[in-house]
Amino acid sequence: MTAFISDDFLLRSKTARQLYHELAASAPILDYHCHLDPRDLATDRRFENLAQLWVTGDPYKHRAMRIAGVPERLITGEAGEREKFEAWAATVPETLGNPLHHWTALELKRYFGIDEPLDAASAGRIWDACSARLREPGFSARGLLAQRGVECVCTSDRLLDDLAPHAAASSGALRVLPSLRADDITAVDAPEFVAWARQLGLATGMPVGDYATFRAAVAERLDVFARADCRLSDHALDDFSYVSVSESDTAGLFARRLAGEMLPGNEAMRLRSGLLCFLGAEYARRGWILQLHLGAQRRTSSRLRRLAGPAGGYAGIGRGCDIPSLVAWLDDLESAGALPRTLLYPLNPADFAPLAVLAGSFVADGVPGKLQLGPAWWFNDHAAGMRAQLEAISNYGLLSAFIGMTTDSRSLLSMVRHEYFRRVLCDWLGEQVAAGAMPDNIDELGGLVRAVCADNARKALAL
Amino acid sequence: MTAFISDDFLLRSKTARQLYHELAASAPILDYHCHLDPRDLATDRRFENLAQLWVTGDPYKHRAMRIAGVPERLITGEAGEREKFEAWAATVPETLGNPLHHWTALELKRYFGIDEPLDAASAGRIWDACSARLREPGFSARGLLAQRGVECVCTSDRLLDDLAPHAAASSGALRVLPSLRADDITAVDAPEFVAWARQLGLATGMPVGDYATFRAAVAERLDVFARADCRLSDHALDDFSYVSVSESDTAGLFARRLAGEMLPGNEAMRLRSGLLCFLGAEYARRGWILQLHLGAQRRTSSRLRRLAGPAGGYAGIGRGCDIPSLVAWLDDLESAGALPRTLLYPLNPADFAPLAVLAGSFVADGVPGKLQLGPAWWFNDHAAGMRAQLEAISNYGLLSAFIGMTTDSRSLLSMVRHEYFRRVLCDWLGEQVAAGAMPDNIDELGGLVRAVCADNARKALAL
Amino acid sequence: MTAFISDDFLLRSKTARQLYHELAASAPILDYHCHLDPRDLATDRRFENLAQLWVTGDPYKHRAMRIAGVPERLITGEAGEREKFEAWAATVPETLGNPLHHWTALELKRYFGIDEPLDAASAGRIWDACSARLREPGFSARGLLAQRGVECVCTSDRLLDDLAPHAAASSGALRVLPSLRADDITAVDAPEFVAWARQLGLATGMPVGDYATFRAAVAERLDVFARADCRLSDHALDDFSYVSVSESDTAGLFARRLAGEMLPGNEAMRLRSGLLCFLGAEYARRGWILQLHLGAQRRTSSRLRRLAGPAGGYAGIGRGCDIPSLVAWLDDLESAGALPRTLLYPLNPADFAPLAVLAGSFVADGVPGKLQLGPAWWFNDHAAGMRAQLEAISNYGLLSAFIGMTTDSRSLLSMVRHEYFRRVLCDWLGEQVAAGAMPDNIDELGGLVRAVCADNARKALAL
Repeated sequence: MTAFISDDFLLRSKTARQLYHELAASAPILDYHCHLDPRDLATDRRFENLAQLWVTGDPYKHRAMRIAGVPERLITGEAGEREKFEAWAATVPETLGNPLHHWTALELKRYFGIDEPLDAASAGRIWDACSARLREPGFSARGLLAQRGVECVCTSDRLLDDLAPHAAASSGALRVLPSLRADDITAVDAPEFVAWARQLGLATGMPVGDYATFRAAVAERLDVFARADCRLSDHALDDFSYVSVSESDTAGLFARRLAGEMLPGNEAMRLRSGLLCFLGAEYARRGWILQLHLGAQRRTSSRLRRLAGPAGGYAGIGRGCDIPSLVAWLDDLESAGALPRTLLYPLNPADFAPLAVLAGSFVADGVPGKLQLGPAWWFNDHAAGMRAQLEAISNYGLLSAFIGMTTDSRSLLSMVRHEYFRRVLCDWLGEQVAAGAMPDNIDELGGLVRAVCADNARKALAL
Repeated sequence: MTAFISDDFLLRSKTARQLYHELAASAPILDYHCHLDPRDLATDRRFENLAQLWVTGDPYKHRAMRIAGVPERLITGEAGEREKFEAWAATVPETLGNPLHHWTALELKRYFGIDEPLDAASAGRIWDACSARLREPGFSARGLLAQRGVECVCTSDRLLDDLAPHAAASSGALRVLPSLRADDITAVDAPEFVAWARQLGLATGMPVGDYATFRAAVAERLDVFARADCRLSDHALDDFSYVSVSESDTAGLFARRLAGEMLPGNEAMRLRSGLLCFLGAEYARRGWILQLHLGAQRRTSSRLRRLAGPAGGYAGIGRGCDIPSLVAWLDDLESAGALPRTLLYPLNPADFAPLAVLAGSFVADGVPGKLQLGPAWWFNDHAAGMRAQLEAISNYGLLSAFIGMTTDSRSLLSMVRHEYFRRVLCDWLGEQVAAGAMPDNIDELGGLVRAVCADNARKALAL
Repeated sequence: MTAFISDDFLLRSKTARQLYHELAASAPILDYHCHLDPRDLATDRRFENLAQLWVTGDPYKHRAMRIAGVPERLITGEAGEREKFEAWAATVPETLGNPLHHWTALELKRYFGIDEPLDAASAGRIWDACSARLREPGFSARGLLAQRGVECVCTSDRLLDDLAPHAAASSGALRVLPSLRADDITAVDAPEFVAWARQLGLATGMPVGDYATFRAAVAERLDVFARADCRLSDHALDDFSYVSVSESDTAGLFARRLAGEMLPGNEAMRLRSGLLCFLGAEYARRGWILQLHLGAQRRTSSRLRRLAGPAGGYAGIGRGCDIPSLVAWLDDLESAGALPRTLLYPLNPADFAPLAVLAGSFVADGVPGKLQLGPAWWFNDHAAGMRAQLEAISNYGLLSAFIGMTTDSRSLLSMVRHEYFRRVLCDWLGEQVAAGAMPDNIDELGGLVRAVCADNARKALAL
């Protein structure tokens, strides 16, 4: 294979190159939604080899290996770390055209200075070279973030998680903030919901006996998150429906669920609707940003679920968003004076346009982009997906208010995806200039680049 | 900000430039669907300033200002005209990347000869310069249309509207024709439907006592429209369902509604279905074009609805079209020998392909493009949306039969969007030639340009 | 009109041209899914004129003629062959921008050496020239395939069809294999289903009296197909729903249907679900590839259905795929160890992303691309559709595992669409290189080109 990550990777015009090299490249990184483990950051974990750092825990790579026909033994099975790394190395040439091909080359080059493409032939050399470098000082968990100029990382934490690691991890230029993965709170369909509510009571010292005490205990934990500088919450609304429900109806449904009853589909949906209204208001009160991850189809192959666990990289894209439901919820929140800033992450590209348009429906005086399309998420996190997202945000909303990239990744090395995004952004702007559709003025374009690369995120996070 | 509307704005190739400058630029404008006020045209209204002409009544600008965080007071609130204009001016730089950025620059340049970009700093100068020019002879309502070579404008008129202004407005090279916004006739869900039906009876001198008299009264008003040279009707099918209903069932449902009963959802839908069949046949009989605006989500924020009214610029894009319903209705009309020429305007881009394909399903001997995708509508009225539309029409239908651009706008200055569309069209054709996908022959391409810019519309309107 | 099919048609970069001319152009054609008539191939049928070969049986052309307003008499009516050809010729200039414009020029050039564009003026000359050439040796059915280097053709055959022609047609370099169009087997909604089941019993000598004997008889015919070297089956799932059904429930529903009962919608769906599970397992057992054609809206105009028959070219694109249903079926098959290799052909472009992503959900050790998006189908079989498909497969799956192009055509001349696809593929790769997104290395790119043009299909077909 040939090296192809030049300085001007993805930058097809002079404007693009100037914008990227002079402005975007040096902007700090605020990764406001990711799945890094705060304990790795607190302990400044070290990694012995590329498998630990890069392969064994990365569902994106696992997915590509599976499509390439690699046996599961070498992916999530009992094979050793070296063997798994080699299986990945042998797969890399097969990913030509996939974003993993780019990410792989970028990550090896940026962190390890390796230009040689990874494949079966180079696997041994690259394994050795990287293992050696991983012993250097700059290659601990926090060191890897510092290498890329990461200023802030917001991890995803469950309501009952310990938030001590975040403070411990924040040091030097780096802030590590918790953010709330709130799905436990609305998981009324889960058999373990009642046990979880009891655990919540124990954790807060506020036993949960009804809806009022449940809300109080949740609010207590939200305060703990707030004191730990949480600024965002996030809900995975895989196949979302909503109806307006009164608080007393919600309380009644909650009481039945707490008594152990599994609610039929429609009533579970009504209870969830009530809980979502309660939570939205709590986020708004605390000035948090609400993130909605919409439209995943998490159940696909039962076989892979058994082998690789519930988040093992085999999920799909589900139906398009039920827009009337989404709008009804947002409107109920707004009517109650309780709509938080909101980021929408649709997984189905058919939802980009309708959800981007909602930026003009839910607004607030003095808050640019109060509700907006978030960056291209998960399967859409590639150059074409980012371009589609930029088109949608520009045409249906305002690019100047766009909060910009976040990785949503479990991998420390994924911070190079900010570089990837910035190259795509600058290239797209250069294309607009070349078409005469934007002014050939580096100051105006530069303002947009700075806003989208870091400034808008910093303002939204009140950092 | 930098001026960027050059002569070759959006024209990236020699072919594009030649097609645009030699053929497209000078083609007359037939704006066959818009929301200009016929009374403004009849009285040849004059405007004192840019706010009146351009800002206070434009929901597109209001929407962008809201996304930028401008307080509602400065948008639809009690602020003065000058203040509202300044709020818009300060917003313009934030719209970089949005079609409003283009439209703003184009409109100031084409009508007022202003190259200076509008922003907070230039607002005062531009306000003064434009106010002065608005006192010149060519800047009345009809003068502004004449400036852009507008040959025909079809306004949107409700069934009981006065059509006298249209004749009064038609003068010189300009024809102003009414076209029917027919939603009142099918609004059986609206509480005011019965009162409206009574008003229809009064207006026609044909009291509405049952379905037969209702149909007679509607037909009477349609004849009034026809005598006033109406050529099109239009229905907003926001979230459309259809089932075949017999005429007697329709009559029964209508009787219940006329007696004051609010029909449950499914019966209201059945009544609407029957009414749509009746109306389609009436349009076909009169040789009108049926326009279907599909998939808006008009109810979003109750707060903005209260502040800005039912069409205040905060609507969204709804679910994709229920294709089996649409097809069933069209087939029922065709089977009854009563299918009019039809233009489909999907708001959700996911509907472009399925609706464009229907061009091959509903056809007529001697009528090219009998049913077709209309031009990019509302939120899709931007360069990328137009390109997507051109791709859909070309690949799934025939571009040669495309009726071309209309503005659907309330603003007199929006006629420059025809220029915008023509530039996109010529640029897209130039791109095809550069790829070797179309012959490098200005005569063949020119035929297409002429057909799409004006000739097809003129033929369809029988002008 | 101007000739425009140059050697570098659609090839915009040096890389594209090199890849196409050095590698793609000469790759053999394996057309693994088409609707050629095996009897024409067995008898090596000859055609007297272009109408017979090219116009009277081609629903794509019929559709374009209808959109252009050509009277049905000249399309499928009583007009003569010459008149129908002339009607098509006069339509060709109107198709500028549509893939038919390209296909027409390519087919005339590649098979007949004609550069002159077809239109009303050239129709006579081209008719005469082609009629003459059709008498030459290389212009029989098999000769036309040989002209384009076709190595293998898989026709679409119904379960009870005679498979003798396939063996008779396979000669020289050409293999003609049957493949199963399986819709008869699941057509429980069709009034003729019971009669068909009886016919199946007669054909196999295994009378169908219940679900067990039905399955045995179907399996018997599948064995006949297998012995005739069938490698693929195909289902048209126009508007697909699925639920898991036990075998005994399936048997019960089947018994009621066999007794003549027309099952209500939901029960018919349940019976179909059971049958689809049975069939999936049968295909898997035989190592066949399962092809799913999803989302056609075959019922549109009743008028055209009457005039032109059930497959007369007036179909549409239906709703997006019910992804939870599709996933549930695939998972049931996989859980039973009975999931065949699968190709998904969505007709609605909104389904490209969600269906492409499923490549990572259903996988098998040692089988690259076990489940994957098939090539752009029917209305999407044009350059923009192919590019969208390549983007989807690359970004959501692995292009290296892509099985590549097939025509799905009834026309012998359609084999030039493989050339069309290869040009689009090479052009797209060239674009990636120009953006710095792929290595500028002809060996690596060439591997991809060879895999996608023929090698992957040859492996998948075990040829």
